Amino acid sequence: MASVPSTPLLKDELDIVIPTIRNLDFLEMWRPYFQPYHLIIVQDGDPSRTIKVPEGFDYELYNRNDINRILGPKASCISFKDSACRCFGYMVSKKKYIFTIDDDCFVAKDPSGKEINALAQHIKNLLCPSTPFFFNTLYDPYREGADFVRGYPFSLREGAPTAVSHGLWLNIPDYDAPTQLVKPLERNTRFVDAVLTIPKGTLFPMCGMNLAFDRELIGPAMYFGLMGDGQPIGRYDDMWAGWCTKVICDHLGLGVKTGLPYIWHSKASNPFVNLKKEYNGIFWQEELIPFFQSATLTKDCTTVQKCYIELSKQVKAKLGKVDPYFNKLADAMVTWIEAWDELNPASSSSTTTPAPAEVPNGPPAKGK
Amino acid sequence: MASVPSTPLLKDELDIVIPTIRNLDFLEMWRPYFQPYHLIIVQDGDPSRTIKVPEGFDYELYNRNDINRILGPKASCISFKDSACRCFGYMVSKKKYIFTIDDDCFVAKDPSGKEINALAQHIKNLLCPSTPFFFNTLYDPYREGADFVRGYPFSLREGAPTAVSHGLWLNIPDYDAPTQLVKPLERNTRFVDAVLTIPKGTLFPMCGMNLAFDRELIGPAMYFGLMGDGQPIGRYDDMWAGWCTKVICDHLGLGVKTGLPYIWHSKASNPFVNLKKEYNGIFWQEELIPFFQSATLTKDCTTVQKCYIELSKQVKAKLGKVDPYFNKLADAMVTWIEAWDELNPASSSSTTTPAPAEVPNGPPAKGK
Repeated sequence: MASVPSTPLLKDELDIVIPTIRNLDFLEMWRPYFQPYHLIIVQDGDPSRTIKVPEGFDYELYNRNDINRILGPKASCISFKDSACRCFGYMVSKKKYIFTIDDDCFVAKDPSGKEINALAQHIKNLLCPSTPFFFNTLYDPYREGADFVRGYPFSLREGAPTAVSHGLWLNIPDYDAPTQLVKPLERNTRFVDAVLTIPKGTLFPMCGMNLAFDRELIGPAMYFGLMGDGQPIGRYDDMWAGWCTKVICDHLGLGVKTGLPYIWHSKASNPFVNLKKEYNGIFWQEELIPFFQSATLTKDCTTVQKCYIELSKQVKAKLGKVDPYFNKLADAMVTWIEAWDELNPASSSSTTTPAPAEVPNGPPAKGK
Repeated sequence: MASVPSTPLLKDELDIVIPTIRNLDFLEMWRPYFQPYHLIIVQDGDPSRTIKVPEGFDYELYNRNDINRILGPKASCISFKDSACRCFGYMVSKKKYIFTIDDDCFVAKDPSGKEINALAQHIKNLLCPSTPFFFNTLYDPYREGADFVRGYPFSLREGAPTAVSHGLWLNIPDYDAPTQLVKPLERNTRFVDAVLTIPKGTLFPMCGMNLAFDRELIGPAMYFGLMGDGQPIGRYDDMWAGWCTKVICDHLGLGVKTGLPYIWHSKASNPFVNLKKEYNGIFWQEELIPFFQSATLTKDCTTVQKCYIELSKQVKAKLGKVDPYFNKLADAMVTWIEAWDELNPASSSSTTTPAPAEVPNGPPAKGK
């Protein structure tokens, strides 16, 4: 039996966001861990289809019609027919923390055979500081049995607030299509018992499969871009969010962690389909990485919104020449922030949206 | 039984450097792993004392008299009564690779109970590339069963040559005196099954207890400074080397890895004695870290020697005002490079030492 704390941590301060096109039977395995929390389900694809949610879960569900109704013309910034639509859930949440997981991810076991409560580990990661300014060779210094090693400056031992917790995957690794094609049978069986902070100034490939973040600290940067239907690219939604997020976290002095917890990723997606979605991204990322590596934000970018708007301008100025798609994406980044501030008037500190607004046209479908 | 390859890797291309003040009984446990290799023993303290080396090992041993005889006045750059003296061994080696280990480090076991061949893992780390320019969330992408994940730019997948392999410690962690005092009973029991590259631009605390490097790539930067007898500081020898090395590796596009292999660190040093050695360093490192974080080398620093001389100038210019010790250290850095180039005329590409010289005054004591 896995240990589930009697009073789940952050029960009323965290939403679980799940993008899906199918019935959510996968939740059965997560029931002991997720049931105390509120779920935000973002239904992708045909809105007339009914998604079944196992009984006993507290949820709200949004399909494309809901997104269009709530955001009006600004719904254009939310991808369709792509799991990038999940970021709509981040926007409508009213909680401080978000955990997002794919519906082909199951509970993994640690080497002792014990079930891993992935959500509990993410919460632990988010509630304890990061160490982005200097590397600690014994990994997370705040973990029981560990500390800062000799030579670690004492002035840096308070760490930085943690904005993002990036979890990993046992079984099917998160490979791109070319690697999937070359290594169809490769499985990740190695359990690395570590959480570490991605150092300041270093970019990483953020996967959206098993991810948690502090919405108040970094939410508006977690935009998953324009992917899927009508777009020349897919499977770069989480990467885009990760690169933007990391640049902004670095600017604002926030931490990003990776490592534990693992989930069990059950099913490799089709590498041929993936290649079709990815091939533009595979070219473009060669220009995107240097762009993000050299991106700097000015001192007056004091909020995530301001940082993100500034980044959108740089995207337009520098990536527009890579492909016209990036002009469209830069516009969508601005729309995203406008929509975010409309739905989150209290937290709005950006100057881009002068008039906060109520969510129009009533609530979406609710469960339980 | 541990597996020892029948033909040890790099048998004729690697020296094991051991600084010591006592008989080397600890080698018995390492016999299956170290016996095929050549040892360079640097005897610290009283040169009249005889250090016993277990039978069957091939070694050369240098005491203080040897160091003074070989380096002449330049011997001033080699610390006395401090394990920092080990770097003399790096200088007299004629091999491409160095592994250095403390004499209170023993063979550790992995979680399955199998003995860890630390040297074999270091060699593996050094012979395969690093990934300093972008973080791979599945850690070492070249390891069996792993690869680069989705979103990792293909142009970066060749990696960079690995200059340094920094191994870790089970049992006694490498803590500073204040942490030792606060947590006298803390032991490191966590085996993290990972090797990772410290990203470009990130500093780390390099511990000299269990360390390997490519002498041809980075050797002249591995100067362990002025510590111990007559100096206002100790226990910062490896840290100093690590910070200089990392800045130079970043400049030259070389990789630094940390993680596996673990050794078993048997004995905590006395925290009260350590505090006395460390307390200046604890203050100074608050200035040293920002110094190294912002240090940049010019384009004409094309060799390790040139980089190191340039760094010594910056040390004098910027750290001299922290304490006069750093003026002395900056001079010793230059002396170190001059001595290095004297003993390694072929590899010398620095312009600081016009006339390469032979090792004067004959060979030191040889074993076997």
